[in-house]
Amino acid sequence: MGTATAVVPGHVTVCFTVDQTETPARTGSRGAGLALEAGVTVSVRPGSGCTLNGDPIFVAAVETVLETLEVEAAVALETDLPIGAGFGVSGAAALGTALAANDAFDVAKTETELIRLAHEAEVRAQTGLGDVVAQARGGVPLRLEPGAPPHGELDGIPATASIEYLHVGEYDTETVLAGDTSAITDAGESALDRVLDRPTLPALFAAGREFVTHAGLADPRIEEILDAVDAAGGTATMALLGRSIVALNDGLSAAGYEPTQTRIDHTGAHLVPDQ
Amino acid sequence: MGTATAVVPGHVTVCFTVDQTETPARTGSRGAGLALEAGVTVSVRPGSGCTLNGDPIFVAAVETVLETLEVEAAVALETDLPIGAGFGVSGAAALGTALAANDAFDVAKTETELIRLAHEAEVRAQTGLGDVVAQARGGVPLRLEPGAPPHGELDGIPATASIEYLHVGEYDTETVLAGDTSAITDAGESALDRVLDRPTLPALFAAGREFVTHAGLADPRIEEILDAVDAAGGTATMALLGRSIVALNDGLSAAGYEPTQTRIDHTGAHLVPDQ
Repeated sequence: MGTATAVVPGHVTVCFTVDQTETPARTGSRGAGLALEAGVTVSVRPGSGCTLNGDPIFVAAVETVLETLEVEAAVALETDLPIGAGFGVSGAAALGTALAANDAFDVAKTETELIRLAHEAEVRAQTGLGDVVAQARGGVPLRLEPGAPPHGELDGIPATASIEYLHVGEYDTETVLAGDTSAITDAGESALDRVLDRPTLPALFAAGREFVTHAGLADPRIEEILDAVDAAGGTATMALLGRSIVALNDGLSAAGYEPTQTRIDHTGAHLVPDQ
Repeated sequence: MGTATAVVPGHVTVCFTVDQTETPARTGSRGAGLALEAGVTVSVRPGSGCTLNGDPIFVAAVETVLETLEVEAAVALETDLPIGAGFGVSGAAALGTALAANDAFDVAKTETELIRLAHEAEVRAQTGLGDVVAQARGGVPLRLEPGAPPHGELDGIPATASIEYLHVGEYDTETVLAGDTSAITDAGESALDRVLDRPTLPALFAAGREFVTHAGLADPRIEEILDAVDAAGGTATMALLGRSIVALNDGLSAAGYEPTQTRIDHTGAHLVPDQ
């Protein structure tokens, strides 16, 4: 037993479906998104309790992962990402805990096994449907079939870019997902088809923008910012599910906002040498 | 049309099977290996011809990739890796060309499509069986089923480490693979089973060492170096298929050799911003 640290990219969903089943490994989401270099560092050591940037926090999916691996660990999460804002912090916490705890406690599972149990923990906690598999992969993940391996199926858009993001306030995720999600899923299927017809970053952002409108997910403040980026000649869409916006290159700053800068992450979740 | 650049990790195989079929996408290799940060940078622009570190070179798989994408491109390969030494330089050239040409010429294929056509080009050129899919993934790839997606299936050992490598001379790859490969495949299946029983780096190196002996791939000079690393308390195995050795951490230098230092790569093949 020792200590271990994993780094997991942030992930924003650009369009999605809701695919609920009775089996967590088959439950998930189809759609597309962006893995971001702005991410979460997860350190694990023997002990108990979980902290986020030094403050105690309870993350249900993290506790489930530790129980599944049958280890008693203290988990420290460090991130600059906004919480509950559509950046996949809980998915990153679950996946990073799985990777780091496997290493620190010499559990000897494979990457696929760890991805699956982190995905199942997120689904059971009802904190995410598609982030874990996307964060394991990195890049610009296309979720073709929902769920964890071997059920889920991924592809990716081969692209690299600078990304800006802006978080503008609280979003009521639970209310959105507790309602009838069939309109979301219909719009998500159309958007994913459109992306697969032309798998490039500009087409992804265009499909995301259309999805957000058709699924009725944006409020007037979000629409105002998206329009302002358009007017300045930029490309932006909503970061789901959160009250946040992502833009290609300098789309948000060129429109006069003060966003955070990051890049598309190509690495996906991985262990790093002990700090 | 413009220019684009991809970076592809080196890849050494630690144990392998030979799975030949009539279909290139189903032909490949099962086994395990290491993706290395020491890799190949592939730049593509409109034009013709291929260079390696500035000198003209003909790489059959690169030409096949360009023909498949229906583009006329000049390809520049830059690498510090030894050539024909078991580090997957031709696989990296094929995969990097696919990613960069897709971007430079706006071909708009997905990552899976590009991986598949690069794998098929390598198989047709008879220069590799398992490197492309491993280099696309990065990390410590386990090739569970042979071939390109959707036929091939990968997992990975979740681990990070410093790696040293040493190349000690020419190896007659063609003669090895032109002979009866059933003994290699039998030994490769046993080695992969052993790794899957305990998917950790020390178990991978132990399985590789046993595979090399059972498959009869090491010559006295290679055996001598592997024994010397053992005697110094280190962990090493042969980098296949080449007359090369890889060691965990400082295994080779601690035994008095002068190896090159690198690390396990976690990113896999990816585009980088234009240079």
